[in-house]
Amino acid sequence: MSEEKTYHMSPAEFRRFGYAAIDWIADYYERVESLPVLSPVKPGDTRAALPAHPPQQGEPFDAVLRDVSERILPGITHWQSPNFFAYFPANASGPSILGDLISSGLGVQGMLWATSPACTELETHVLDWVAQMLDLPPRFRSTGTGGGVIEDSASSAALCALLAARERATGLASNARGCRERLTAYTSSQAHSSIEKGAKIAGIGRENLRLIDVDANFALRPDLLAQRINEDRQAGCVPFFAAATVGTTSSNAIDPVPEIGRICREQGLWLHVDGAMAGTAALCPEFRHVQAGLEFADSYCFNPHKWMFTNFDCDCFFVADRAALIQALSILPEYLRNQATETGAVIDYRDWQIPLGRRFRALKLWFVIRHYGVEGLQHHVRRHVALAQEFAGWVRLDPDFELAVLPPLNLVCFRHRGGDGFNQALMDRLNASGALFFTHTRLQDRLTLRFCVGQTHTERRHVEQAWRRIRQTAAELARG
Amino acid sequence: MSEEKTYHMSPAEFRRFGYAAIDWIADYYERVESLPVLSPVKPGDTRAALPAHPPQQGEPFDAVLRDVSERILPGITHWQSPNFFAYFPANASGPSILGDLISSGLGVQGMLWATSPACTELETHVLDWVAQMLDLPPRFRSTGTGGGVIEDSASSAALCALLAARERATGLASNARGCRERLTAYTSSQAHSSIEKGAKIAGIGRENLRLIDVDANFALRPDLLAQRINEDRQAGCVPFFAAATVGTTSSNAIDPVPEIGRICREQGLWLHVDGAMAGTAALCPEFRHVQAGLEFADSYCFNPHKWMFTNFDCDCFFVADRAALIQALSILPEYLRNQATETGAVIDYRDWQIPLGRRFRALKLWFVIRHYGVEGLQHHVRRHVALAQEFAGWVRLDPDFELAVLPPLNLVCFRHRGGDGFNQALMDRLNASGALFFTHTRLQDRLTLRFCVGQTHTERRHVEQAWRRIRQTAAELARG
Repeated sequence: MSEEKTYHMSPAEFRRFGYAAIDWIADYYERVESLPVLSPVKPGDTRAALPAHPPQQGEPFDAVLRDVSERILPGITHWQSPNFFAYFPANASGPSILGDLISSGLGVQGMLWATSPACTELETHVLDWVAQMLDLPPRFRSTGTGGGVIEDSASSAALCALLAARERATGLASNARGCRERLTAYTSSQAHSSIEKGAKIAGIGRENLRLIDVDANFALRPDLLAQRINEDRQAGCVPFFAAATVGTTSSNAIDPVPEIGRICREQGLWLHVDGAMAGTAALCPEFRHVQAGLEFADSYCFNPHKWMFTNFDCDCFFVADRAALIQALSILPEYLRNQATETGAVIDYRDWQIPLGRRFRALKLWFVIRHYGVEGLQHHVRRHVALAQEFAGWVRLDPDFELAVLPPLNLVCFRHRGGDGFNQALMDRLNASGALFFTHTRLQDRLTLRFCVGQTHTERRHVEQAWRRIRQTAAELARG
Repeated sequence: MSEEKTYHMSPAEFRRFGYAAIDWIADYYERVESLPVLSPVKPGDTRAALPAHPPQQGEPFDAVLRDVSERILPGITHWQSPNFFAYFPANASGPSILGDLISSGLGVQGMLWATSPACTELETHVLDWVAQMLDLPPRFRSTGTGGGVIEDSASSAALCALLAARERATGLASNARGCRERLTAYTSSQAHSSIEKGAKIAGIGRENLRLIDVDANFALRPDLLAQRINEDRQAGCVPFFAAATVGTTSSNAIDPVPEIGRICREQGLWLHVDGAMAGTAALCPEFRHVQAGLEFADSYCFNPHKWMFTNFDCDCFFVADRAALIQALSILPEYLRNQATETGAVIDYRDWQIPLGRRFRALKLWFVIRHYGVEGLQHHVRRHVALAQEFAGWVRLDPDFELAVLPPLNLVCFRHRGGDGFNQALMDRLNASGALFFTHTRLQDRLTLRFCVGQTHTERRHVEQAWRRIRQTAAELARG
C-alpha cells in the first residue's frame, strides 16, 4: 500500500520544479527585449508542433518546461516586452506574479465570505485602499453605502452595471419576467465594444443602445445626449443607463463626466464610468482630473491589469450603492446557506459578479501596492506619461507626421502624411520586424497609428528607438 | 540617471523571492492537514489585522510573505486540505500551480488569435485532447463543426449557452432589438442556481425558466418536461432552451439526458448539459455512462477546476456548432481588426465568452494532463469514487444513520436519524472542531449532510477518520 504510485508531485519535487519555473520566468524577463514582440507564426503552426493525442503516462516536468520554450514561446506575442506599444498594455510585475502564485497555491474559493473569510476581507480592504489612493468619492468605499470588488475585466464590470441599472429601472421586474420594457442606454460612438456586447447580453439590444456623437476631441457631446434622452422619452422609451469613458480605446478621449453626470442625475439614469486604462493615472494628483464628475457616477471601474503592474485578471469595480448591485445578481440556494450570510454581517462577492466561483485575486494587487508603495506606482505612471508626451513632441516636429489628436496621457495617436495605405504598410513592416509592436484605429475616417506607453519595463531608450525605427522605415517606404 | 530608483523587483530579487514563495507553498502543503479546515475567524477579524491606509513607500517582500502567514492564513478555509469534504471540491495540484505561474509570467492576452497565437492554439488543442480523453461525440471537437474553450466557470458556460440559444431562437433579433419574445427555458428543480442567474442576466426572466419536477433520485422527469413544453407552446410562448445536469450540486443526481435530448431535438430546443463536477468521472470508461445522450446536446461543460487537479479557473465548455456561439457573442471594433481574423482562418476566443480579455488558462490544464497522464488522472478518480462508496457503505451499516439517496459517484448524501436539529448541531460541531469540513443541503425536505470525496490529497485514512469523528460526535450529542 505504501508502495502505491501516487502520481502526485511531491513537496520536494514541487520545490525543485517550482524553482525551475521561477528561473524560467526570470530568464524570460532578462531576454524578452531581444525576442520578436509580435509572434511571427502562421495559423496552425503551434498546433502542428503538438502531439495529436494526450499522453497515456505522465511525463517529466523538465520535458514540459522545455516544450514551453520550444513549442509555445515562438507563438507568443510578448505583452511583457518593453517594446510593446500595442492596444492598451496588460502589464505585470514581479510582486504581482508572486501574489498570484500564492493565490494558486492556496486554491481557495471566494464565492462567499464563509468559504474563506480572508479572501473576501482582503479584497474589500485593498479596494478601500485603492479608493484612498485615487481619492475616489467616499460613497465608493465599503465604509459607506458602496464598495469595491475585483472583476475579471472592464467588460464584466460594465455588464454588472447594466444589470444593476436594468433592475433599478424596472423595480426588479426584468429579473422576474424578462426584459419587457423598451429600455434605452447611452454611450458615445467611441465607447468600448464591451458596452454594446453588454447591451446584447442583458437583453437590451444593440439598437436600444444610443451611440451619441462626439466632439473634435472624440469626447461625448452632452448636448446631444440630453437631446436624445428627451426624444426617446417622447417616443415612449425608458432611458435607464449611460456609460461614459475616461480614456477611450481608440484615442484616450475623456468624456465630460461632470456634464454627463448632471444629465443622468436629472433624468434618473444609472451612470457607469469606464476608466479601464486611464484610471490608473489618478494615482498622481496632477492627473486626478480624469476623475472629475465621479461624484455623479453610480459605478466606476479601472483595470490595474492594464497599467498598474498587476497581471490579468484584475479590474477594480466600485459601486456607490452596493444594495442595487446585490439585488440584481443575488442567488441563495440551500447548499450555499450559512450563518454569516444570513446575519448580513458580511459581503458575499458571489452577488457582485456574473459567475459564482472566484479566485483570491486581491493577493496580487495587495502584493503590488505593498512592494511599490504609492510612491513607486506614481513614479512609473509619471514616467510613462512623460515618455508618451515626449514621443508626441517628436511627431509634431516631424513634417512627415502628424498627431491625430493631442494625447491626454500615455497614448499617442498619429499618422504619416502619406495616407491610409502608407500607414498600413508602415505599421505592417515595423510589426513584422519584431523590433516593436503597435496597433491602429480609425479617427476622422483615416487610418491612425496608436502608440501606447505603459509596459512595466519600457524606458526612454525603447521609446527613442521606436521613433527612430518608425522614421527610418517611413523613409525607406517613401523611397519605394 | 542610471542611479535612478526603479522600484521594480529585479530579476535577481525575483529569483530569491520566487524561491521563497515556492517554499511557502511547499511548506503549506506539508502542514495543511494540521490546520483547522474551516477558518474560525469572525466577521471583521482579517480586516482588523490590516493597516487602514496603503503604504506610501514600498515594503520588503519578506514582510509581505510573513503577513500572508500571520494575517491572511488564519482567515483561510483550506480547500486544499485532505480533510475538505464540503461543497464540490476545487482542487489543485503541483503541475497546475506551476502551469499557472508560467501563465502569470508570460502575461499574454488571448482575446484574439493575433494577440498571442499559441495561447489560442494550445487551448483549442488541449480541449481536443480532453474531448478524446472523455470520448465526447466528435462534433464537439474543433476538427468538426464545434470545439472547446476554457471559461472561468460553469456559470459563465451556462450563460454563453443561453445566449447562443436565445439568438438561434430569435434569428439574432434579441441581440438587435432586445429580448422581446416570450422565450421559455427548462431545467430541473435541482439544477444549479447559475441557470436561474443566467436566465435573469440574459433578459429571459426567472419566471420564464420552468423548474421541472424530479423523480425519487432527484433526476429531471422527461415526461413532465415534454408536457410543460407543450403547454407553453399552446400558451404562445417560445420554448428555446433546456439545461440538464449530470451530477446536481445537492445530491449528484444525473438527469436522463438521452430522453431529454430526444425531446429537445424534436422540439427544436438548445440542450446544454452541465457536468461541472461529475463530468471528470468520464475519464474512466466504467463511469462514462454519465455522458449518455451527449450526442443530442448542443453544448456541454465540466470543470477540471473541481475534480481534475487544475486550479480555478478552468471550466471546459464544448459546443457542437461554434458558429451559433460566435454569432451570439461576436464584436469587431476597428482597434481589434487584423488580417488573421479577417481571413477567418483562426479562432478568436473573445467571441466564445462574456469578457473580452483572457489569460493563458490552457497552460495549467496542459501541465496537469502531461504530468499525470490519462492513467494518473483515472487512478485518482477511481480512488475518490471507491472511497466515497466505502463511506456510503459504512453509513448504511450504522443504524443511527441513513443515506438520503444512493450515491452515484463521489458525493454521499446522508443524515443522522435524529432529525434536522440534530444534523445541524452535528455538522456545526464537527466543522467548528477544524478536523474536517463538510456542508449540507435539503432533500426530501430534510436537512441532509453532503460528504464529497474529491480533494487531491484525500486518502483512505482521512475518510476513515472523518467517519469515526462523525460517529463519535453524534454519540456525544445523543448523550446530550
